[in-house]
Amino acid sequence: MASGLPEPEPLLTLVEALRCLPGVGVRSARRMAYHLLQRDPQGALKLGAALTEAVTGLRHCERCNSFTQDAVCATCSNADRDTTLLCVVETPADQNMVEASHGYRGLYYVLQGRLAPLEGVGPDQVHFAQLLERATDGVVREVILATNFTAEGETTAYYLADMLRARGLTVTRLARGVPSGSELEYVDAGTIAWALMERRPTQG
Amino acid sequence: MASGLPEPEPLLTLVEALRCLPGVGVRSARRMAYHLLQRDPQGALKLGAALTEAVTGLRHCERCNSFTQDAVCATCSNADRDTTLLCVVETPADQNMVEASHGYRGLYYVLQGRLAPLEGVGPDQVHFAQLLERATDGVVREVILATNFTAEGETTAYYLADMLRARGLTVTRLARGVPSGSELEYVDAGTIAWALMERRPTQG
Repeated sequence: MASGLPEPEPLLTLVEALRCLPGVGVRSARRMAYHLLQRDPQGALKLGAALTEAVTGLRHCERCNSFTQDAVCATCSNADRDTTLLCVVETPADQNMVEASHGYRGLYYVLQGRLAPLEGVGPDQVHFAQLLERATDGVVREVILATNFTAEGETTAYYLADMLRARGLTVTRLARGVPSGSELEYVDAGTIAWALMERRPTQG
Repeated sequence: MASGLPEPEPLLTLVEALRCLPGVGVRSARRMAYHLLQRDPQGALKLGAALTEAVTGLRHCERCNSFTQDAVCATCSNADRDTTLLCVVETPADQNMVEASHGYRGLYYVLQGRLAPLEGVGPDQVHFAQLLERATDGVVREVILATNFTAEGETTAYYLADMLRARGLTVTRLARGVPSGSELEYVDAGTIAWALMERRPTQG
């Protein structure tokens, strides 16, 4: 945005700093800055403190690579979990969604990324070595690949499947098919094609 | 977003705090938090400091109501400005756009809002009294209303025009018409209608 006005330094610094947020350009950053200063200075102070607190207080869990305050996170230290199952997800948000399904009692590994060759993100950038070490601890029997069903997620799953199967582990992938509760008319053709290919016998 | 995982406190606090940003819901807040923690902790620390700095270091200019570090902002203290002209805008962003046109050498008044009766924002919430005091300082001769050409902006301009004209001030509004550089085919009908109504004789 062109500007001919001499603006106060703290405002310019704040606008620039807000651009570290994903998807926020100069214009959005300005709108956010004006909004916070005019309508919610208390919220801005809280956010400021929360950012510092989170960055200094959180680290990666040694076992699952998710965020935690301790060396090992609450999920990995939970004795009720099935330690023979390891579910690989891209982000903590994905991990939350799997957990919210109430259909899984094993442990997790959070990649915190995915292979994206076009963006220059290869196996080294996603630290696959750490996952390999985790998966070959002798306790894990099956690795469930729950990366996204996007081009990058599929590439990641394909690569990991090869790598983990070579170590003698059972490797599975989340089922693909028609979403629960959806009408066929509104499901895309690719999904229907997969659901047909992976059709299964009815029970009973 | 449903979540069954015990998440570390600083992460939850950060997600909650990010929701003070305009247009950011739980899902975006989570994505932002994960992004900052994983990809840009330095940016997050800078943003944290910038927020505190801006909120504690900035205040409203006594004359124009924009943000400043001093009692009176750099623009209002500029002796080269025409003090008989006062341009009323909704936000500092609008002020920047007027300034970037290089077509104005007068002073500004920033409403930091606009009338929005449907949202319960009336004349008292937008502090019109302060504008009135500023505009009737005996030096200002003309007030240029540069609020947006939206329903709320027009309502605000209409209200202010009445109020200021009653005090003996000349009140003008930004011209409405076909945007510079645009093709008629792609201009909306309402704009063309206004441009026809407010047509003016050619020069020379």
